[in-house]
Amino acid sequence: MRAVIQKSFGGPEVLEVAEIEQPQPLSGEVLVRVHASSVNPVDVVVRAGYLPLLGQPPFGVGWDISGVVEVAGPGARYAVGEEVYGMPFFPRAATGYAEYVAAPSRQLARKPKSLNHIEAAALPLAALTAWQGLVDKADIKAGDRVLIHRAAGGVGHFAVQIAKARGAYVIALASAAKHDFVRGLGADEVIDYRTTDYTEVLHDLDVVFDSNADGERSARVLKPGGVLVSIMEHANPERAAQVEAAGRRFAGVSVEPDYAALEAIAELVDAGKIRPHVSETLRLEDAGKAHELVGSGQTVGKVVLAVR
Amino acid sequence: MRAVIQKSFGGPEVLEVAEIEQPQPLSGEVLVRVHASSVNPVDVVVRAGYLPLLGQPPFGVGWDISGVVEVAGPGARYAVGEEVYGMPFFPRAATGYAEYVAAPSRQLARKPKSLNHIEAAALPLAALTAWQGLVDKADIKAGDRVLIHRAAGGVGHFAVQIAKARGAYVIALASAAKHDFVRGLGADEVIDYRTTDYTEVLHDLDVVFDSNADGERSARVLKPGGVLVSIMEHANPERAAQVEAAGRRFAGVSVEPDYAALEAIAELVDAGKIRPHVSETLRLEDAGKAHELVGSGQTVGKVVLAVR
Repeated sequence: MRAVIQKSFGGPEVLEVAEIEQPQPLSGEVLVRVHASSVNPVDVVVRAGYLPLLGQPPFGVGWDISGVVEVAGPGARYAVGEEVYGMPFFPRAATGYAEYVAAPSRQLARKPKSLNHIEAAALPLAALTAWQGLVDKADIKAGDRVLIHRAAGGVGHFAVQIAKARGAYVIALASAAKHDFVRGLGADEVIDYRTTDYTEVLHDLDVVFDSNADGERSARVLKPGGVLVSIMEHANPERAAQVEAAGRRFAGVSVEPDYAALEAIAELVDAGKIRPHVSETLRLEDAGKAHELVGSGQTVGKVVLAVR
Repeated sequence: MRAVIQKSFGGPEVLEVAEIEQPQPLSGEVLVRVHASSVNPVDVVVRAGYLPLLGQPPFGVGWDISGVVEVAGPGARYAVGEEVYGMPFFPRAATGYAEYVAAPSRQLARKPKSLNHIEAAALPLAALTAWQGLVDKADIKAGDRVLIHRAAGGVGHFAVQIAKARGAYVIALASAAKHDFVRGLGADEVIDYRTTDYTEVLHDLDVVFDSNADGERSARVLKPGGVLVSIMEHANPERAAQVEAAGRRFAGVSVEPDYAALEAIAELVDAGKIRPHVSETLRLEDAGKAHELVGSGQTVGKVVLAVR
């Protein structure tokens, strides 16, 4: 089968499409015929060698997939022909940018019925990051006042929609060109971080969802006991200690496969509460270009690879 | 740290306690200070080399653990000091019979409050096998008539209790000496398989939970459309085809880590609906003896290793 691999750390040019052996599902696993795979910032930093999750190359790339069960391993949870999505094996083996992926059943969920595979592939890692931060860690509730950094980004645009679906009052940070998009997601207020220092106009928030490594400033706008959900600084004990010393709660998030949350997300998608935004759809051969786009930090929503 | 390993396939005597390096939790993972680990039949068949899940030895042994979070990796779901239980990494790396285990947060759940670690360690793999078969696959409902094979065994004694907790009418197979035990679990009828051929006295059941590789006969007592949940024959396509051709549904089960089901099980335990039965508690040094007991197929409930 065809899959994107890398034989060394480096720029987008190290990504290549190779012919590799098709994986075999173990007991409890399924072989997924992948229709689409999406690109996340973590793919880019792993590729470059900044985050050594996978040891030394060669290895595969990416985690997010949506596709159809081609082979159901013995005892698997899904039947041949079912449509599934997920981010199997993260943060271990990266096998996502490929024609076939073998995955444990309980690292997948049924694809939202209202989405095609391109859209569904945009969900897993980014939407689970937002879910595990806002729901599992911060337990946001109706009426909570929540600030979302980088609200037009891959994780951010899901965070806005999940917070709204839970009834929160959402204040979003984005550059002016993206304000219409972010308002369309349901944000109640949008602040242009380029012209306004949000720490001067916000205070006493219940939750800040910080996907911008801006923890020190973010903590300042929280009420006592408020929660700083941190995606980028989750492994920074100094930040955690500082936030806790100031009487706020530090909640670092490291996303994990989670079929139960994927099922909850699929329900919200099919109820019209969450909609992935795909800004670019490229092909496996264009994985390098996709990494350039995502690595720029300027994309709106998600970049997806159409595998077939 | 001390852990049980095996350097070759073979009998219980290949198990040895070795001094090995303490694992390190990755992002999203926790390091669990293990208080107890339980022994499952799968540990025995992997040890002997009949089920080559782990490649060639040397490797560790076992999956079920209960313990206390000693180190929370960046972004992990649990805090230092929380009590957790689970069967991390199954069916891959076996790391359970050990003083410390590093595990993904979402392959663990909070230990039932009403149990000590010895009891909690008895739950994960066996109770999840029963749960994933009866609840996920067969979707048993109040009033369903359900037959449970080997009802006094590790998996069986949980299957009886889970079926009862869902309101089913439970018919249990066990030898006469174990009938009082099985009735105490809540079974409505108990049949001594040594003196009675259950296929002659039962018919039109909704579900058979077959943990005895007795699929052909089991299917005969199902109603049309009834479900054969098969633990031992899940990888037997001929059995599946035969059952389906007879108008019954074949549901093979291969257990997987499942924090959401572990949470549901913990709730039922704390509500008094499920109680693990531990027949023997041994120490790490006695892992070989524990394997002998479990390998005999005659143990009631579970055999647990007290790690500290």
